[in-house]
Amino acid sequence: MKFIGVDLGGTNIKVALVDEKGQIVAERSRPTLLPRPAEAVCDDIAALCAELTADADESIGGIGVGCPGTVDDETGMVLYSNNLDWNNFAMGPYLTQKTGLPVRLVNDANAAALGEVLAGCAKDAQSAVILTLGTGVGGGVVLDGKLLVGYTGAAAEPGHMVICDTPDAPLCTCGRRGCFEVYGSATALIRMTREAAEAHPDSLLGRAQSFTGRTAFDAARAGDAAGQQVVQAYIHNLAVGVANLVSIFFPQVVGLSGGVANEGESLLAPLRKEVDALVYGHAHAKKKTAIVACTLGYRAGVIGAALLARDGKE
Amino acid sequence: MKFIGVDLGGTNIKVALVDEKGQIVAERSRPTLLPRPAEAVCDDIAALCAELTADADESIGGIGVGCPGTVDDETGMVLYSNNLDWNNFAMGPYLTQKTGLPVRLVNDANAAALGEVLAGCAKDAQSAVILTLGTGVGGGVVLDGKLLVGYTGAAAEPGHMVICDTPDAPLCTCGRRGCFEVYGSATALIRMTREAAEAHPDSLLGRAQSFTGRTAFDAARAGDAAGQQVVQAYIHNLAVGVANLVSIFFPQVVGLSGGVANEGESLLAPLRKEVDALVYGHAHAKKKTAIVACTLGYRAGVIGAALLARDGKE
Repeated sequence: MKFIGVDLGGTNIKVALVDEKGQIVAERSRPTLLPRPAEAVCDDIAALCAELTADADESIGGIGVGCPGTVDDETGMVLYSNNLDWNNFAMGPYLTQKTGLPVRLVNDANAAALGEVLAGCAKDAQSAVILTLGTGVGGGVVLDGKLLVGYTGAAAEPGHMVICDTPDAPLCTCGRRGCFEVYGSATALIRMTREAAEAHPDSLLGRAQSFTGRTAFDAARAGDAAGQQVVQAYIHNLAVGVANLVSIFFPQVVGLSGGVANEGESLLAPLRKEVDALVYGHAHAKKKTAIVACTLGYRAGVIGAALLARDGKE
Repeated sequence: MKFIGVDLGGTNIKVALVDEKGQIVAERSRPTLLPRPAEAVCDDIAALCAELTADADESIGGIGVGCPGTVDDETGMVLYSNNLDWNNFAMGPYLTQKTGLPVRLVNDANAAALGEVLAGCAKDAQSAVILTLGTGVGGGVVLDGKLLVGYTGAAAEPGHMVICDTPDAPLCTCGRRGCFEVYGSATALIRMTREAAEAHPDSLLGRAQSFTGRTAFDAARAGDAAGQQVVQAYIHNLAVGVANLVSIFFPQVVGLSGGVANEGESLLAPLRKEVDALVYGHAHAKKKTAIVACTLGYRAGVIGAALLARDGKE
C-alpha cells in the first residue's frame, strides 16, 4: 500500500507518493498562487493526487497534509493559518470528498520532524527533537513515534523559549525579548555577522559584500578572528537552547535542519562539546542524546505527512 | 484490587495501600536511617508492605517505588541515587524476591507528578507539567497518562533550563548560571527576600527576624513596598519558566506544588496573567493551559507510585 504526502506552503504545493517505508515513489509540485480561495488550492491538491496515482498499481491508504499554522487533525480543520490566510477551513472533509481518501492534517514543521524521525536522521529513535534553523527556529518533538502537539495542537514552539530574560535582549517577532529564536536562527547568525563586520571593518567579515548564514563560517575556516568569534558565539547560543531541550526531554536524538546545519561537523562537533558541558551529567552518561544533522532536506515534510497517513488516526 | 505505593526519601520511607482510583486505604512510615545498606532499607520496605497488607481482603496487584535519583524501570535498577548513596542496585528484583509482588521503579519527583495527574490537580487532563517549588525546582511531565522519562530515564529536569544566559546570573547547584531553579525555587524567593531586606532596612522585610518563602508574601499583603517588589519579581521569574514550558508542551495543566504554591491566588492570579502575556496567542486562545495548585500534598508520591504499579509495564 502507498500513501500521499502533501507539503502545502505559501509558495508551492509539493505532493509525493510514498511507500510504507517512507521512500518517495513519485512527486509533483505546483505553485500555490496565493491569494485564492481555500477550495481552489484544495482542488489543485486533489488534481496532483490524481496525477500521482493514475498509474499506481496498488491501493492508496490515505493522504497526509502538512500545513502552515494550527490544525485540528481530529476534525480535519485548519484552525488558523497566517501564511495561507485561512480560518476554520474544513480541509480534511473537503479533500476526502474530492479524492475519496481519508485525510490527516499536521502542522508543516511537525510533518518535517515526523519525517526525519520515521525515515531520516532519527529513524528508529525512541524520541527526538528536530530543530529547523531558518528565518526562525522551528521545532517538532516526536516521542515513541508520536508527534507532541499538545492540548491546543500548537506544540511545539521551542523557538519561543526565552533563554535570556534581560531588558536589553534582542526583540523577537513574537513581541518578547530573549527567545531562543533571536539567538539560534539563521537570521540571528546573519545579524551577529553583520554586527561583527561593522565592529571589525578590516576583518574578512568587514570586507564581505553580502551576508548569509555561511559568511561567518567561511571566514572562520579562513582563519579570520572576527569570523571565529561570531561562530563561537552563535554555537554557544545554539548550545544553550539545545541543552535546555535535552534537560527537558533527554531525547535519543536532536536533529538540526536548515542551511546552517549544512556546515556539518564545523557546527556539530563544537556544539556537542558545549551541550555536554551544559547538561548535568551528560558528558559521562552511558546513554546520551546524539546531536546530528537532518538527512531528508525539503522532502522531510511530504514524507512525514505521508507516514502520518500510514499510521492512521487513533 | 489494591496496590502499594512507596515514597523512599532520605529521611523517611512512606508506604501506602492505594485503591484503583488512587485513594489511600492505609499508610505507614518509618525513618530511612541512612547510611545503611540498600538491602536493609528494602527489608524495611518489605516489612511495611507486609504490615499494610496483613488485613487486606483483596489481592495486591504490585508495588510502585518512587526513589530519588535515576532509575531504570525496565530492569528494576536504581542506577544512581546521590541522596541514598546507591549505585546500580537491583531494587526491583530484590523487593520482588522479598514480597512476591511485581515492582515498578520511578524517580520520586516523577511519582509525585504522576499522582497529581492521575488523581490530583490534573485528573483526566490530556497532558500536564507538574513543578515543585522547593529547595530547587523539580518537575514531572505526563503526556496521555504516561510519564516522560526520556531516553536516559533522567527526564524531566525543567529546573535546569537556562532562562537567563548572562555571565552575572546567579550560580545554580548544577554548576551553570541562570537556571530556572535559581529564579523560581523557594530558595530563590528567600534569597530575593533577604537581599531586599538588606537594601530596605526600614521596610517590613528589613525588620523581619527570619526569612521563609512566606515572608515576602506576608509583607506584600500588609502593604509593604519592598515585599511587593520581591513578590512581583519572583512571580515574573516563575512566569518566564512556566511560559517556556507552555511554549514547548502546550499542556492542558501546569500544576505547582511546594510551600510557595500554598500562597494560592496571591501567586496564581498574577502568574496566569503574566504567562498569558508571554505565550504567543495564549491570552485569546480558546483552549489554553490551566495554571493551578497541586492538591495531594506529600501524598502525591505514594499515590503516583501505586498507580504506576496499577498500570503495569508495557
